[in-house]
Amino acid sequence: MATLVFNCGSSSLSYKVFQTPRGRPPQVVVAGKAHRVGVTGTAPAFVEHHAGGEVRRQETLIPDHRTAARLILEYLRATGVNVELVGHRFVHGGSLFNASAFLDRDTLRKLRSCLPLAPIHNPISLGVIHECRQSLPEVRQYVTFDSAFHCTIPDYAYTYALPRQIARRFGFRKYGFHGLSYWFVSRQVPGILNIPADRLKLVVCHLGTGGSSVAAIKGGRSVDTSMGYSPLPGLVMSTRSGDVDPMLMLYLMAVYGMRGDDLMDMLNRKSGLLGVSGFSSDLTDIIQRLDEDKFAGDNRDEQPLLAFRMYIQRVRKYVGGYIVALGGVDALVFTDDIGVRSWRVREEVCQGMEWCGIRLDAGRNRQGNPGATCLINAGDSRVSVLSIPSDEELAIYLQGQELLLTGALDAAV
Amino acid sequence: MATLVFNCGSSSLSYKVFQTPRGRPPQVVVAGKAHRVGVTGTAPAFVEHHAGGEVRRQETLIPDHRTAARLILEYLRATGVNVELVGHRFVHGGSLFNASAFLDRDTLRKLRSCLPLAPIHNPISLGVIHECRQSLPEVRQYVTFDSAFHCTIPDYAYTYALPRQIARRFGFRKYGFHGLSYWFVSRQVPGILNIPADRLKLVVCHLGTGGSSVAAIKGGRSVDTSMGYSPLPGLVMSTRSGDVDPMLMLYLMAVYGMRGDDLMDMLNRKSGLLGVSGFSSDLTDIIQRLDEDKFAGDNRDEQPLLAFRMYIQRVRKYVGGYIVALGGVDALVFTDDIGVRSWRVREEVCQGMEWCGIRLDAGRNRQGNPGATCLINAGDSRVSVLSIPSDEELAIYLQGQELLLTGALDAAV
Repeated sequence: MATLVFNCGSSSLSYKVFQTPRGRPPQVVVAGKAHRVGVTGTAPAFVEHHAGGEVRRQETLIPDHRTAARLILEYLRATGVNVELVGHRFVHGGSLFNASAFLDRDTLRKLRSCLPLAPIHNPISLGVIHECRQSLPEVRQYVTFDSAFHCTIPDYAYTYALPRQIARRFGFRKYGFHGLSYWFVSRQVPGILNIPADRLKLVVCHLGTGGSSVAAIKGGRSVDTSMGYSPLPGLVMSTRSGDVDPMLMLYLMAVYGMRGDDLMDMLNRKSGLLGVSGFSSDLTDIIQRLDEDKFAGDNRDEQPLLAFRMYIQRVRKYVGGYIVALGGVDALVFTDDIGVRSWRVREEVCQGMEWCGIRLDAGRNRQGNPGATCLINAGDSRVSVLSIPSDEELAIYLQGQELLLTGALDAAV
Repeated sequence: MATLVFNCGSSSLSYKVFQTPRGRPPQVVVAGKAHRVGVTGTAPAFVEHHAGGEVRRQETLIPDHRTAARLILEYLRATGVNVELVGHRFVHGGSLFNASAFLDRDTLRKLRSCLPLAPIHNPISLGVIHECRQSLPEVRQYVTFDSAFHCTIPDYAYTYALPRQIARRFGFRKYGFHGLSYWFVSRQVPGILNIPADRLKLVVCHLGTGGSSVAAIKGGRSVDTSMGYSPLPGLVMSTRSGDVDPMLMLYLMAVYGMRGDDLMDMLNRKSGLLGVSGFSSDLTDIIQRLDEDKFAGDNRDEQPLLAFRMYIQRVRKYVGGYIVALGGVDALVFTDDIGVRSWRVREEVCQGMEWCGIRLDAGRNRQGNPGATCLINAGDSRVSVLSIPSDEELAIYLQGQELLLTGALDAAV
């Protein structure tokens, strides 16, 4: 039975088709990714498909995630892949979803009411779901949720210091995101370092092309993370501001008469690296510009360098805060696209951290393979530093298999 | 010549009358403080006056800072103190004030336009200024600004990741506060530790009864601080929320129809310790309730404990972030009311920080004298830990003396 798994990033759509041959581990039959979906930048958007050792790359306009999903489903149909189950990732299930669920009318209704909770991610995931309903009307679908991993965060870290009545009435609390990635990564580390999971203190930097966050993980359980009720706060992201003085929002609305939806659009889609650099939401573009600008002399635009430094500084501050929250750290882990691909980001984040036992091996870090787990700390580093490619799709697939099993068990009772 | 210095906290009004006898250091002739000004709590408000070794304590209703100033001016007149100059502290001078200034029509106009920048502090300072203009119409006044100390924060730490046009148009950037306190404390430490100022890396926790912040100070210059454009973000404070997901503000206004000024009032006056504990904005009240509740069994209210833990955890996360921003730390300093008075806060903040070389001496910490500088780290601690009473009033006095000198020099040219 072939399961298609979709995984929406804010500017990408990954997919994998899994099969589990009897008695063997899950296998990926075909996989791919739509890149730079809806991105304002210089390089073109494209979809890559990987099957049987071959890569097909399709450069095309990809204005939104639904279009990306249609391109992927067309490719799968054309290459004869028979999809029998589709799994989705929904970043914010609010309090309506504590676990993954099959898609039916009730689930769909609840998903719709979760849309405002993550105004970038939730609508694009729902668009992909709708595309599957239209293109594959006979095929069963299920939804997994990213917020689940962070349900172990203690109350003093998830509560906002607002009047308790307001927090309760509107359900305001830190939920956190990137849960599938943190779940996957935190289960890899014990085996790599040969330390029991329940004794491990991890700081994990999930640095994506769209959204990014940091999590503090103790004994396999999340104890804090940089995103909040929404996926806006925390790090400087591609188009999201991350942390800002909340009073600025009130000034813009109450004093300067800006509209609420314009402000949401600004904070979520026009801020972050794009807003500061003024030309791209893609950190790779920005780093390239820095290299070009080395020779530009006095005429160079200072904004890309400022954007890069802000990005690094914000990650560093969270790493420091979470090391204190954990009372020390055994391993610092970098994951997701930027996390595994940019040696420069890892080098800058770890700069001058010797005082707390973090020492990078410059060579190992620069030569690290983005496709494999790499140990990149120096031999005498007290803290392990790792680059681990996340596999959110495998996590989604496994949750679907669990759902099928539970359904079968329920039916048998 | 007697100079009266007023220093508004968000729930207190301190004053000191200074004189500098020829060839000797400044002396305090009389000093005092109005406590619990406008505070919702269980203990009564009062003014204390200290003069010639005697203390006078006056319990009375003090609904606002202007009333507190009137009570103090009445006391000074009644005891025959002849005030010839009055100095004030204004927390937020925005971009209109880079240095202290004598009060005239122009200064007053600019102060008024700074009111919205710090909706708790600026209006109460202006109220005190007006009271002085009314009660002491003949006496010269000057204003000092708290934002100046933080003008050395680098761009990647003071810039918000908003669209650059928006940030420029509205002048949005991190300003920071408690500058007089940080200035004073950071100039004390080199002498105490016998380390040259330009080599010192300090993390200073300014923990007040009203507002609180943390600053990272390198070589005597501020490199980051937890407050921002406004004094709202950062730590959990008495009635201020500190950091919250900015999207919550947009939901409350755009989706739930809450009014901007109600939201400002909520974030600044009804949140923080008051909002979470549900009964007091005063950490001392909350700690006392925790001690009482130890015997309350299952009936105890969990909210005071939650408020206390949130307060501590937020300080800890900033301390960690700033140690990383500094690339290590030589001394961790606690100052202002809560900082020097609460051994419990210091103990909890330093808990489990051995991994980065911070070890408190439990006995020294508990016995520390709030009125004097105390070294409270263990002998084998790599990092010094200090409790230092701040003297913002002395800083204000000295800035006034500088102003007089500059004025005299200008007149002589």
